[in-house]
Amino acid sequence: MISRGQVTIKDLAEELGISPSTVSKALKNHPDISQETRKKVNDLAKLWNYYPNPIALSLRNSRTKTIGLIIPEIVHHFFSSVISGIEDVAYDAGYNVMIYQSNESFNRELIAVQALLNSRVEGILISLSKETRNFDHLRNVLDHGVPVGMFDRVCDEIETDKVTVDDYQGAYSAVSHLIRTGCRRIAHLSGPPGLPIADFRRGGYLDALRDNNLEINRDLIIYCDNFKQALIRTKQLMNLSEPPDAFFTVNEFTATGVVKSLYDLKIKIPEEVSVFAFSNGLITQVTNPALSTVDQHAYQIGQTSAQLLLDRLLNQQITRPFIHQVIKTELIIRESTRF
Amino acid sequence: MISRGQVTIKDLAEELGISPSTVSKALKNHPDISQETRKKVNDLAKLWNYYPNPIALSLRNSRTKTIGLIIPEIVHHFFSSVISGIEDVAYDAGYNVMIYQSNESFNRELIAVQALLNSRVEGILISLSKETRNFDHLRNVLDHGVPVGMFDRVCDEIETDKVTVDDYQGAYSAVSHLIRTGCRRIAHLSGPPGLPIADFRRGGYLDALRDNNLEINRDLIIYCDNFKQALIRTKQLMNLSEPPDAFFTVNEFTATGVVKSLYDLKIKIPEEVSVFAFSNGLITQVTNPALSTVDQHAYQIGQTSAQLLLDRLLNQQITRPFIHQVIKTELIIRESTRF
Repeated sequence: MISRGQVTIKDLAEELGISPSTVSKALKNHPDISQETRKKVNDLAKLWNYYPNPIALSLRNSRTKTIGLIIPEIVHHFFSSVISGIEDVAYDAGYNVMIYQSNESFNRELIAVQALLNSRVEGILISLSKETRNFDHLRNVLDHGVPVGMFDRVCDEIETDKVTVDDYQGAYSAVSHLIRTGCRRIAHLSGPPGLPIADFRRGGYLDALRDNNLEINRDLIIYCDNFKQALIRTKQLMNLSEPPDAFFTVNEFTATGVVKSLYDLKIKIPEEVSVFAFSNGLITQVTNPALSTVDQHAYQIGQTSAQLLLDRLLNQQITRPFIHQVIKTELIIRESTRF
Repeated sequence: MISRGQVTIKDLAEELGISPSTVSKALKNHPDISQETRKKVNDLAKLWNYYPNPIALSLRNSRTKTIGLIIPEIVHHFFSSVISGIEDVAYDAGYNVMIYQSNESFNRELIAVQALLNSRVEGILISLSKETRNFDHLRNVLDHGVPVGMFDRVCDEIETDKVTVDDYQGAYSAVSHLIRTGCRRIAHLSGPPGLPIADFRRGGYLDALRDNNLEINRDLIIYCDNFKQALIRTKQLMNLSEPPDAFFTVNEFTATGVVKSLYDLKIKIPEEVSVFAFSNGLITQVTNPALSTVDQHAYQIGQTSAQLLLDRLLNQQITRPFIHQVIKTELIIRESTRF
């Protein structure tokens, strides 16, 4: 029996009959070490409650092996999935991920960037807050030689690796599906104008109507992007002399509000009105009926963003051209749309 | 017109006719400065895109004004609300919040603690991963003179400030409500044995049955704590020769699975079967019918945790006795239970 807090890398090495440096690499999931050995070492380390001495580690390593991550709002299922994708790739490569939430505030985004620089992160991944219109804080990061990657909410003003969702195509496909299944008066509950992801989704909606020779009715396009507003706005729209026969919403929360509101009005989904959401969080599965939606592959966005950044950190390929990767969306057809 | 990146505290001070030090304090939301002046300064700073120079700041401050936060899973609405509560209190006091997700892994929790120490955070708030059974990493933090606060998932082994939910009482009240409204065969979809919050909730369920002289039926107590399992387990339970007339679930995801499953079985909620959830995320509002649930006041848990920690950091009251604050739960009665 090993006494508390005294397990060392040497103890693990002796027990397993391998060298301390192999144990050390295995604990860091270093690719040089076979999967089998890594598992053996990590299992024993867990069993014996081995833990590294943080202070010793910090003195030994000059590199922090840390990626900084700034996201607008943790509460969104989309962003928590992105985080998981980033973390899984980063931890596999021996990096940890320090997270800041800007909470959609430009000021908190500035504080986060500064705090990450102070912590000497090796790179920063960011999805911009809704308020961010000035990008000097990111230029400042790049000026310090720290690579930046942007995802989902990106900007044209900064040249760097970017990973975005094919918002336009996702919206176009969703609305085309509604038209194909017989819907003719399709309402759009949209995000605020000027926010690129909202603009692209609105663009996809409009073009799908145009390409199918359907009239664009401005009364059916409403700026409304949350559950509570959707409860009210849906009732108003259904009170029009010619109410919509379908809703396409900018995100999943708004769609759940539409479903709830139609349920209260005793309007049948999808027989009388179809509903198409955007984003594939758990919340889209729990409504009755379950929501058809556009899957953005959030986890993959996270993975790709982390991979592009680690490329630069691990291979020092600081000179490779910037990559803008667009992740294709996918329609998930459930019960809220007709066949 | 001010050119890009050149706005200084002096510029703001001159424009507003106040001293640079007042501007500086107002930007940090220092309590010495009136609400009105803080707003005036911050509005202008935003309008002019003023931003502090991170490097200069880092040189000027010897204290990092950073709180480290470790949470098990960001995807839970409960935890994202706790984060908001912590952040709002911290930012008001001029502190920022660095977040790590342990993802329920003991190993990632160790890495997070180490990374936070390396970043010289002034204090750490933590909710333990499901795997954590050894607490040396937290003893190590305390040994370095860095205060630790625990919330929700706490342990007896570490003496420190703690904030928990009154899980037992919440469960007891919810089940008592079900009994009062005529339910007699109440199933419990429970969390894993050994996880304190699950044990407390199961305890509250059992005692409410006992105190109301209802038989405890082991067939109606199932270990099942997520949406997908709940879909299957609910069908199995409803196939019993004497099916339950109510469900009390350990969390909100499980409850949404029950509702979905009953909907598929065309069983009416609450006329035939009542459903009571635990935790008050948005997801409990979007089901049809909306779920009655136990509100844990997650935001308040965050606020209280941050306040207790800041107490120690700002007033250096390191010697005050440790406080264990229990936040009272509250029943939210919606449409999934009878009146």
